[in-house]
Amino acid sequence: MIKVSIVGTGNISHHLAKVFSEASEVELIEVLESRSLSIESLSHTNSQKFEGPDLYILAVSDDAIAPVAAQFKGSSRLVVHTSGSVSLESLSFLERSGVFYPLQTFSKHREIDFERIPICLEASKQNDLELLRTLATSVSDTVHNISSEERKTLHLAAVFVNNFTNHLYAIGHQLCATRDLPFNLLRPLIRETAHKIEQLDPIEAQTGPARRNDLKTLERQLEQLPSEQLKEIYTLLTQSIQEIHGEKL
Amino acid sequence: MIKVSIVGTGNISHHLAKVFSEASEVELIEVLESRSLSIESLSHTNSQKFEGPDLYILAVSDDAIAPVAAQFKGSSRLVVHTSGSVSLESLSFLERSGVFYPLQTFSKHREIDFERIPICLEASKQNDLELLRTLATSVSDTVHNISSEERKTLHLAAVFVNNFTNHLYAIGHQLCATRDLPFNLLRPLIRETAHKIEQLDPIEAQTGPARRNDLKTLERQLEQLPSEQLKEIYTLLTQSIQEIHGEKL
Repeated sequence: MIKVSIVGTGNISHHLAKVFSEASEVELIEVLESRSLSIESLSHTNSQKFEGPDLYILAVSDDAIAPVAAQFKGSSRLVVHTSGSVSLESLSFLERSGVFYPLQTFSKHREIDFERIPICLEASKQNDLELLRTLATSVSDTVHNISSEERKTLHLAAVFVNNFTNHLYAIGHQLCATRDLPFNLLRPLIRETAHKIEQLDPIEAQTGPARRNDLKTLERQLEQLPSEQLKEIYTLLTQSIQEIHGEKL
Repeated sequence: MIKVSIVGTGNISHHLAKVFSEASEVELIEVLESRSLSIESLSHTNSQKFEGPDLYILAVSDDAIAPVAAQFKGSSRLVVHTSGSVSLESLSFLERSGVFYPLQTFSKHREIDFERIPICLEASKQNDLELLRTLATSVSDTVHNISSEERKTLHLAAVFVNNFTNHLYAIGHQLCATRDLPFNLLRPLIRETAHKIEQLDPIEAQTGPARRNDLKTLERQLEQLPSEQLKEIYTLLTQSIQEIHGEKL
């Protein structure tokens, strides 16, 4: 049985608390508010008698990781953060530190199938990495040891396939709105676009006027766009598709 | 019972033929190769005796629509195309013309749940629009009358949410490859990003450093990108997110 305390009360905390409560090999001891955390309230963590958690998971924003982790200075407990972009190094002042990064986008009101979420692990000590692996495999089928540098690259890739992709959905939404067309018309297409690459490599899956080098359509669509910024995005992404596929504009 | 002939043998033809074969109210008469089509082979279509189809569906590439449709000049049969970007006007030399545009991305080897695909209809005659509606509702739950101008806008929006989105997946793939990381790590995130907006408006669903105006992360990630083109894409999409959300870089 692994005993876990979570620090922070945002989306990741919410989902971790839920999945750990349901995992038979994990005991969720508490969910602490990061703001009310203080050296005093944690001073018991160093007491030999204290039957505390095996690890603290800091599910807080990137900027809060260092100040919150500082509260654990001198503690002999394992403290891990859950961020894609903060290095393990930044917790080097702790005796035992690590990373438990679930590569997913979390919203409070959406159920998440945790088993399918890749969990990226890193730890300063081999024993702690093994503890984290036991914890991670108790909730997910996909667990990887990922270095801080690799994690940064993954997080950057995630910005493209999640944040920027969602923004393209928003542009689709805006274009529909210019003619009072319901966004619902695009939802099945969005779903299928994502599902297609469950089996396919996205480079093979590419279709459309840029891929076909259909200059007539490219020119007509560029004209049709209602703002300079959308024209710029259209041009840049078209060029980028053509370069990947060895075409020239 | 509506009798249908399909002209063309690509992806859309394949999926239309399949769904029409299974629909109880539709009789699929034939799938014709557009290349072997000739005035001679179609001359029977004008014969009063010929028990031909109620309509021909041209499931051919945009550039092929006009030349293939020209073979039907003088015919009294309804001829419709399946393109998002070709206007109804371009078939104005036909007595009866229309559009049957399923708003989806089709691949030969993927099963498609046709019921959920929005079908956009247009016709030069009211009776033909009703015929098309009967045909469309026999295979899909979502049928809309959409003008040529509206269809062009939808098709442009589709380029953003399908073609460009897939390209962002390809960039994610490339970034993973720079560190030999498996693309599989991103697949659950891609899936969830699409599923999230089944209920949410994409503007509400936006997350990430651009949305949070997290300048430190934005700067660090920009530096991390391996090419000038990726930096340009990152900068432009970041600015566009910030403008939609009323932030300034």
